[in-house]
Amino acid sequence: METLLRQSRAVCPFLKKTSASTLRALSTSSSSHASGIAGGKMSNLQILARRCPIMGKAMAVQSARNGLNSVSSRIGGVSAGGVKSVTQGRSYVVPTRAANLQNSRKMEAMASSFEDVHMKAGVFDTTKGICPHGAAAMKAAKAAADLAAAAEHKPTVLSKTADGTKAKFDYEGFYYNELDKKHKDKSYRYFNNINRLAKEFPRAHMATPEEKVTVWCSNDYLGMGKNKHVLQTMHKTLDTYGAGAGGTRNISGHNQHAVGLEQTLAKLHSKQAALVFSSCYVANDATLATLGSKLPNCVILSDSMNHASMIQGIRHSGAKKMVFKHNDLVDLEMKLASLPPEVPKIIAFESVYSMCGSVGPIKEICDLADKYGAITFLDEVHAVGMYGPAGAGVAEHLDFEAHLAGKPRGTIMDRIDIITGTLGKAYGCVGGYIAGSSLLVDAIRSLAPGFIFTTSLPPAVMAGAKTAIEYQMTYSGDRRMQQIHTRQVKEELDSRDIPVIPNPSHIIPLLVGNAELAKKASDRLLDVHGIYVQAINYPTVPVGQERLRITPTPGHTAHFQEHLLEALEDVWTTLAIPRTSDWAAKGGHVGVGVPNPEKPDSIWTDEQLGLQETEKDLAQINMEEKALADMIMENIAANQNIEKELSADAMMQTGVHIAAAASFEAAKAVEISA
Amino acid sequence: METLLRQSRAVCPFLKKTSASTLRALSTSSSSHASGIAGGKMSNLQILARRCPIMGKAMAVQSARNGLNSVSSRIGGVSAGGVKSVTQGRSYVVPTRAANLQNSRKMEAMASSFEDVHMKAGVFDTTKGICPHGAAAMKAAKAAADLAAAAEHKPTVLSKTADGTKAKFDYEGFYYNELDKKHKDKSYRYFNNINRLAKEFPRAHMATPEEKVTVWCSNDYLGMGKNKHVLQTMHKTLDTYGAGAGGTRNISGHNQHAVGLEQTLAKLHSKQAALVFSSCYVANDATLATLGSKLPNCVILSDSMNHASMIQGIRHSGAKKMVFKHNDLVDLEMKLASLPPEVPKIIAFESVYSMCGSVGPIKEICDLADKYGAITFLDEVHAVGMYGPAGAGVAEHLDFEAHLAGKPRGTIMDRIDIITGTLGKAYGCVGGYIAGSSLLVDAIRSLAPGFIFTTSLPPAVMAGAKTAIEYQMTYSGDRRMQQIHTRQVKEELDSRDIPVIPNPSHIIPLLVGNAELAKKASDRLLDVHGIYVQAINYPTVPVGQERLRITPTPGHTAHFQEHLLEALEDVWTTLAIPRTSDWAAKGGHVGVGVPNPEKPDSIWTDEQLGLQETEKDLAQINMEEKALADMIMENIAANQNIEKELSADAMMQTGVHIAAAASFEAAKAVEISA
Repeated sequence: METLLRQSRAVCPFLKKTSASTLRALSTSSSSHASGIAGGKMSNLQILARRCPIMGKAMAVQSARNGLNSVSSRIGGVSAGGVKSVTQGRSYVVPTRAANLQNSRKMEAMASSFEDVHMKAGVFDTTKGICPHGAAAMKAAKAAADLAAAAEHKPTVLSKTADGTKAKFDYEGFYYNELDKKHKDKSYRYFNNINRLAKEFPRAHMATPEEKVTVWCSNDYLGMGKNKHVLQTMHKTLDTYGAGAGGTRNISGHNQHAVGLEQTLAKLHSKQAALVFSSCYVANDATLATLGSKLPNCVILSDSMNHASMIQGIRHSGAKKMVFKHNDLVDLEMKLASLPPEVPKIIAFESVYSMCGSVGPIKEICDLADKYGAITFLDEVHAVGMYGPAGAGVAEHLDFEAHLAGKPRGTIMDRIDIITGTLGKAYGCVGGYIAGSSLLVDAIRSLAPGFIFTTSLPPAVMAGAKTAIEYQMTYSGDRRMQQIHTRQVKEELDSRDIPVIPNPSHIIPLLVGNAELAKKASDRLLDVHGIYVQAINYPTVPVGQERLRITPTPGHTAHFQEHLLEALEDVWTTLAIPRTSDWAAKGGHVGVGVPNPEKPDSIWTDEQLGLQETEKDLAQINMEEKALADMIMENIAANQNIEKELSADAMMQTGVHIAAAASFEAAKAVEISA
Repeated sequence: METLLRQSRAVCPFLKKTSASTLRALSTSSSSHASGIAGGKMSNLQILARRCPIMGKAMAVQSARNGLNSVSSRIGGVSAGGVKSVTQGRSYVVPTRAANLQNSRKMEAMASSFEDVHMKAGVFDTTKGICPHGAAAMKAAKAAADLAAAAEHKPTVLSKTADGTKAKFDYEGFYYNELDKKHKDKSYRYFNNINRLAKEFPRAHMATPEEKVTVWCSNDYLGMGKNKHVLQTMHKTLDTYGAGAGGTRNISGHNQHAVGLEQTLAKLHSKQAALVFSSCYVANDATLATLGSKLPNCVILSDSMNHASMIQGIRHSGAKKMVFKHNDLVDLEMKLASLPPEVPKIIAFESVYSMCGSVGPIKEICDLADKYGAITFLDEVHAVGMYGPAGAGVAEHLDFEAHLAGKPRGTIMDRIDIITGTLGKAYGCVGGYIAGSSLLVDAIRSLAPGFIFTTSLPPAVMAGAKTAIEYQMTYSGDRRMQQIHTRQVKEELDSRDIPVIPNPSHIIPLLVGNAELAKKASDRLLDVHGIYVQAINYPTVPVGQERLRITPTPGHTAHFQEHLLEALEDVWTTLAIPRTSDWAAKGGHVGVGVPNPEKPDSIWTDEQLGLQETEKDLAQINMEEKALADMIMENIAANQNIEKELSADAMMQTGVHIAAAASFEAAKAVEISA
């Protein structure tokens, strides 16, 4: 909006001398006598705008240009349906929009209630600092939209048949009411237009290139979206193989990029096979829905804080679902023990829970799964790329030394039956996957409609993701630096009495505890400080646990951290958001300010992070490791089109790659006995 | 595999003098005395391979390198579970793999049955023409895999507890059985490794760059995956905004590319708003599931040939479903009339049904929807980019002149409540969308988990798709050329008595009528003629209606067409596939060879295709139109970073774009009354 503001200030004497806060006040206040059509309230800013020679004329011209009929038919929906019905000579007649707009008193009440909701929710933030021309146009437009919406959603007016028989269903009215509910319970979402700049990330721009902000809530945790190797691979693949895959995996959309990516994923998790989906939402949904519906009498045991994709997958499966308390092994075991041994059971859980940063007890859940004959389904979406010597996730991290030594067998990761992950967060691209046994993967590949009937990811995306994984397998400096930045910010926040919900991972959830306040905090960070941190409200988190969720990246160096901390200090003070000590005075909340807190052990130990080194040595080690990784990646890129030797790898490049992957593993068995 | 073959021929005197067909025979024949471990059969090729000094040594070395234990634990699954259990001192003990491999007779039978299935299904095609080293390794690997698989899936051996209490569920055995069923009913899918070359499409290469083929079954119908404007936009966006979006739309993943793409889609379909999803599978699934579950007592009326994504969406909604006969208005009306008027109803159908090319009666379904108070949900996935003056689909095409004149109001497209489409077929990228009223779109945006909880598409993908749509809105030559090529191929096939399932669209389904034969035809086209056309078998089409589905593109010029026709002639003759006259002799089948057939009117008329022009004039017109389109697109690309004027467009670039879009539409209403 800055551009608009500048442009407008250049031409408008009113704007030049009026402050942003006055403009805001004008746009949200109204004179009691002022009213638009159908008695709808007008803001003082609107009234001013109508007096303006430029804006007033523009509005008149536009109104002359558009006939009422074209507007009425264009807005569509139920009203248009009504008009259509008349045309077709049907028996029910719907009054035209004009009649609606001018006659209904009830409508007016609805409109102004809707408007109030918008105001409170801050929808008018977009008008902040705009010249009254723009602001008025926006305002007028919104008021009209609200009125039009209200007009459309008066079921008795719109859908009653002329002969008095039962009304048809009012679809637009239904949508309106659903949205209204969300406005009222503060769960309506406003999207911020954030354009992350590859060359400057964590910097981004908003609607115009001039409005620069710093992003502190991206899930591109390692900044891989700007990694030069990833981008090089993507450019190269785009040039050679084009924009899209052109088909489903079965019909012309299976290619070397899919094969290569799935091999890399299987290798990353030391599993026999992997399968790539459009997203990990789809991977979780499709896999749980398929297993739950196919396994006879299957029961799915689901952590109470599981992600929506798992909840949906379980629901779609139609299988019996038992929800166990978050990370509660006693509750899980009680539920497992209540089920007959022969019944198939899936324990579905996560490693890092993204909204609070808590971590699942993976080893202990594997033990329970073994004891009760269940399989484990572990979502590592927020952990892949971030933990473990190769970036395979928390399960890998738990046997750090074994994996570092290349001995994955018998480890916790090895014991997990199904690992799911994303290519869209720490790997910086898009897409999701599962990894597991060849038979499991082949079964999902063969049975899950969400995999079968969808276009493959573009070759460039798959190739880019593969490069990102390989890079993170080669170089661990990004995730170590991410952890160090997380620690630094958490420590600083603690020292400033700003409430961090304690957890052992890379997520920094700041407790606010109120939806409106959380939104205001997010808005103030953006508007005043140029820092983007999205507020997380119900239903993503429970009511009363609203928060700001901060995610540092390797690029969030000291300078950015200082800026963030100062901004948070201001926001907490200005908005009088409770501090840690305030929560403590109330006995604590969501782990904040609880008496005698146990500080959770960070997943990454000091030693793993290299914190025993001096800072200078650490920087040196990182630099050398990075140079080596860069060299390796350049080599891979240079050689990727060179024909492979007569190797198992080349064989696995054939069409029936999944069968071949299984064969390769098993080949040894034959040879041993030979 | 050509590379392997060449490399092997250079070093192997045996291979040099042995023909591919002999090798194939050797690989699929076995001596009665030859047996591997556990009595598993060995092919004659395997026996030869073991005598080879190179291969024999390689196998010995590899077998020495890998201990039995590591293999046994690495293969994982149930057996590994057993081993683990022992380690943890649980009471149930599972025999080791070695014991299994050597003791079970039943297993052997299972393995060889599984092998037979593989043989028949052609899984061994990958060994065709490889040197015996490779072939033997593959073969040995496969046999071992089968044995290992069989060993793992003997529930009584593997999952019975030591103390004789009830066995735990055998998951790997379950997957095995599910796959076995698919092998047996011939619905198991083998993916072909197809790498479409941007600079040469419809040419592609298989596993190695040397194995070139021509693709005749891609859904990149217009070759937009290689369009220079699309690729330029993607490169530029990659450079500026990086690889991925970095978050969901709500948390840092909303950006100008999403806003711009959705505006373009709304404009394309003359709707108030649009919403982009990971894929159109997700768009259909999420939208129908959300509407069906939220609308009180909703009934969804679904065409019997609807795509899997709609079927899943309806299932996931939990709403009542009524399936009407494909394109049968009488059946649909009967079902509509049986429902009370006040009950919300959704009629879900497609414009072009992709597997047979039939087209839905869109106008008539709109009439029925109006009459019975239903809303229409139209899947234009196979039609967007392909029909209509702007490429908006069949609904647009039906009012060709009105849309060409920029008068969309009151047209059939205008009457459709929800249009869904893809960015992954004619637009050459990936992703899906819905378009409809602002309130509908905002409701789905606010309520559908499949939209809310998933990472946005990468900026480059969204920008590329937007460019593709804009290009196709500007230039209609690609889709006209695609139609002309379709007509040419259909006419030639008719004249050669090769059976095309008749339809008015751009799909050319060739009736084969037998799953095994369809697969053989596809294999022969690929192996002998270097033409890739995937066989379409059950469950994608009914048993007995198996087919080859051919999709010409603008790039499939005369030379490619001749090649295809000759190849099909050979395949039909060699495999003795029934011709049109054969079906006619039996009274016809799926519209092929029926007495007195009505030739369906092509959606594109001769006039719309410009067929009244001479070929030379047409080429000239196309060239001029293309030059103009190229110029326009270059201008758009050059100006895309120039700040927009103080315009409605700029306002719509703000965060609350959906609300703003609605406001913009409605703004006129205020001004009119002002």
